[in-house]
Amino acid sequence: MVETACSNFKVVVIGGGLVGSLATVYFANKDIRQDKHASGRSINLALSTRGIEALKGAGVDDEIIPTLIPMKGRYIHALDGSFNTQNYGIFGQCINSVDRKLMNEKLLTVAEKHALVKLNFEVGVERCDFESGEITFVNNKKEKIIVSDADLIIGADGAFSKVRQQLLRQLTMNFSQEYIGHLYVELNMPPTKSGDYAMDSNHLHIWPRETFMMIALPNLDKSFTVTLFMPKEKFASIKTHQDLLTFFDVTFPDAVTLIGRDLLVEDYFKNPKGTLMTVKCDPYHYKNKAVIVGDAAHAMVPFYGQGMNCGFEDLIVLNELFSEHVPSNRAPTEEELGTILSKYTETRKKDAHAICDLAKQNYIEMRSGVINPKYLLRKKFEDFWHRRFPDLIVPLYTMVSFSRIPYSEALQRYEKQTTWFEWYLKARITFKVVLALAVAKAFMPLVKKLIQ
Amino acid sequence: MVETACSNFKVVVIGGGLVGSLATVYFANKDIRQDKHASGRSINLALSTRGIEALKGAGVDDEIIPTLIPMKGRYIHALDGSFNTQNYGIFGQCINSVDRKLMNEKLLTVAEKHALVKLNFEVGVERCDFESGEITFVNNKKEKIIVSDADLIIGADGAFSKVRQQLLRQLTMNFSQEYIGHLYVELNMPPTKSGDYAMDSNHLHIWPRETFMMIALPNLDKSFTVTLFMPKEKFASIKTHQDLLTFFDVTFPDAVTLIGRDLLVEDYFKNPKGTLMTVKCDPYHYKNKAVIVGDAAHAMVPFYGQGMNCGFEDLIVLNELFSEHVPSNRAPTEEELGTILSKYTETRKKDAHAICDLAKQNYIEMRSGVINPKYLLRKKFEDFWHRRFPDLIVPLYTMVSFSRIPYSEALQRYEKQTTWFEWYLKARITFKVVLALAVAKAFMPLVKKLIQ
Repeated sequence: MVETACSNFKVVVIGGGLVGSLATVYFANKDIRQDKHASGRSINLALSTRGIEALKGAGVDDEIIPTLIPMKGRYIHALDGSFNTQNYGIFGQCINSVDRKLMNEKLLTVAEKHALVKLNFEVGVERCDFESGEITFVNNKKEKIIVSDADLIIGADGAFSKVRQQLLRQLTMNFSQEYIGHLYVELNMPPTKSGDYAMDSNHLHIWPRETFMMIALPNLDKSFTVTLFMPKEKFASIKTHQDLLTFFDVTFPDAVTLIGRDLLVEDYFKNPKGTLMTVKCDPYHYKNKAVIVGDAAHAMVPFYGQGMNCGFEDLIVLNELFSEHVPSNRAPTEEELGTILSKYTETRKKDAHAICDLAKQNYIEMRSGVINPKYLLRKKFEDFWHRRFPDLIVPLYTMVSFSRIPYSEALQRYEKQTTWFEWYLKARITFKVVLALAVAKAFMPLVKKLIQ
Repeated sequence: MVETACSNFKVVVIGGGLVGSLATVYFANKDIRQDKHASGRSINLALSTRGIEALKGAGVDDEIIPTLIPMKGRYIHALDGSFNTQNYGIFGQCINSVDRKLMNEKLLTVAEKHALVKLNFEVGVERCDFESGEITFVNNKKEKIIVSDADLIIGADGAFSKVRQQLLRQLTMNFSQEYIGHLYVELNMPPTKSGDYAMDSNHLHIWPRETFMMIALPNLDKSFTVTLFMPKEKFASIKTHQDLLTFFDVTFPDAVTLIGRDLLVEDYFKNPKGTLMTVKCDPYHYKNKAVIVGDAAHAMVPFYGQGMNCGFEDLIVLNELFSEHVPSNRAPTEEELGTILSKYTETRKKDAHAICDLAKQNYIEMRSGVINPKYLLRKKFEDFWHRRFPDLIVPLYTMVSFSRIPYSEALQRYEKQTTWFEWYLKARITFKVVLALAVAKAFMPLVKKLIQ
């Protein structure tokens, strides 16, 4: 542990996942000494504008961007094996498939290089005393490690956060966790014999099946990570290898060939069935002492691809508040920290709640909306006006994935656009009726002549 | 600890509050050996039909009923010192003011008398292993006490339940806790000099002040427990004795005299300001091993006076399920227990959620509805029809407080009655307009004559 010339300010970041490691880089850049404690998890990810902006803000985008695989749209697999594609943005914007493990390693490597950063792996939080800033960790030999005098504790320890659990005991905190009744399992689609991607690698693949769906994202090794989302009961009904193969033959006939029957059976039965949960809470901070970020503060279902992006954006918001309230190269005072953290909760809460709700809604869009005529008409309508008035009408997906418009504002603008679209639909019907009447009137003399 | 002839069935009830001690009596009546562990809390309570039915079911109503003070309606104190009363039920039904401590003692005494019951006070749960049925308690000397081989664990350990916390770790459980932004403080209104109640003791007293309120319930010692509910900010704005007295002089002029200025100041500043929270979760049980009841499962704000009643009714429901699925005088099999507990969650969840929502709504009714003309008109309308068709139209308050109609059904029927009432309002306006026109027409010749 190294003290900097400028400060007696000690930040402890708890959690070494994506958000935790990026948080460490952000605070290391502030020339403030740090502790760092870590652990890991799975599922493949999509990085979009908010996440990229956060990487840029920490100066680590150069490390990460070369490892991304851009996906310009959805590749939709129909039941009969046919397909169509839908671009994400009309200006060619892409979301990017990310290797979680690789990105995490790169972020930790950058963090580690900072002279001020000290990383500690394989320790778990047992207790945080937020008032005194004392944290009790336990390592894998069950030994206690006490870190005292933390000036700021950052909880980035994921959806089942221990830091949040400690906040729940020491604050009056609103809190909810809600599981959706669906589970997921990850499968693998290997490269072809010639060593190439088995499907188009510049799209996110979806097999929308109304009440459930399967998706696939490309990996750097030319394989795809395939994720099947289904109701619990459907998982329970697949008991034997034959049940599984029959189900895939009927439901995902093209995918079963590309995955391979043996590998499908192996992965499906071996891999864990994950639950899907939304966590909301309020506030995110304890006075001027602690704050939770990322999944610890707002775990969401993965259907908008915004979990990591929102967690990264948390750090932009927090960093902006530090810049706004603390002169550079000086540690914040207790009062400044109090202001920063309470403003953080105030502004971030509504945005995090909005994206949690949007993420839940987007499951329905992905599994059935993308093949629904009304949805497609709206997409056409909004794309048309967005091309002409790029700032006035912006499709929701573009606001969420390709801008830094606050999520809550994006949701409000979307609702307003819904009203406009409903008016358009009414006008469209009126126009058709008027046209039909005009045509009927024009042809009336002819009809009269014919029937006379 | 005593084993019964009929069973190797060991029930551990955690929590010795009202619901916990009544649960102990229920299971002792089943001739099943038990452990019992306890702690305590405050605020005065109203016992109504559901709670009384539960006491009867456990055979302890004879002990309790003599200690109740019936309240037949609301006694509403206006700003100018005037008052009016509203009966709770048109057939003279009463809710009953309860001394929490006395009732708790009586229930524990009954429980203690059972040969099979073993009570352990001043121990806290540290860990439950639901799978093995092993519970680790810690006593006030920090010694661990391990209770193993529990066949059924009943968590009745209140709003901040440790058993629920353990369930949250070992189950995929939906959970929410939500604070309303109001706090409460308890005050005391002593008996008069002549040793009598300072106000009418057969009513629940309310000082409705639109955005906040004060209430008072009678105690056996002729005092009233007065509870002031207000937004956090309003509490924060009262800093000095003078602030408090000015506020009371303006807002509760009649109460301030009856409480006494010195006692008011003393109680207000000495007594803790309590938070008000709603807890919902789902499921309530762990396989065939554990179940949570009372506030542990569904803490609610106190405004419907149903927290204890609902917790007691939990035990009726659980007891009915036992009677339905297990032949009497034999311990349940693991399979039977599994069925009972999962049916318990299924049926009780929707009712508990309904009363949690109703309790929140009722704050608005108590602090402003009771003086709102539309509310009073509806009360008149429903009372009128309830008197004529007692089963068809039942006021919500009657369904909740004076029946065992499941809370969720009461809520649905209330919503239907709202529709009928809206129709009645429309018909009433139409009738008035028609009447006015008829009168105008009848008088027209006269008017014509006059103006000619």
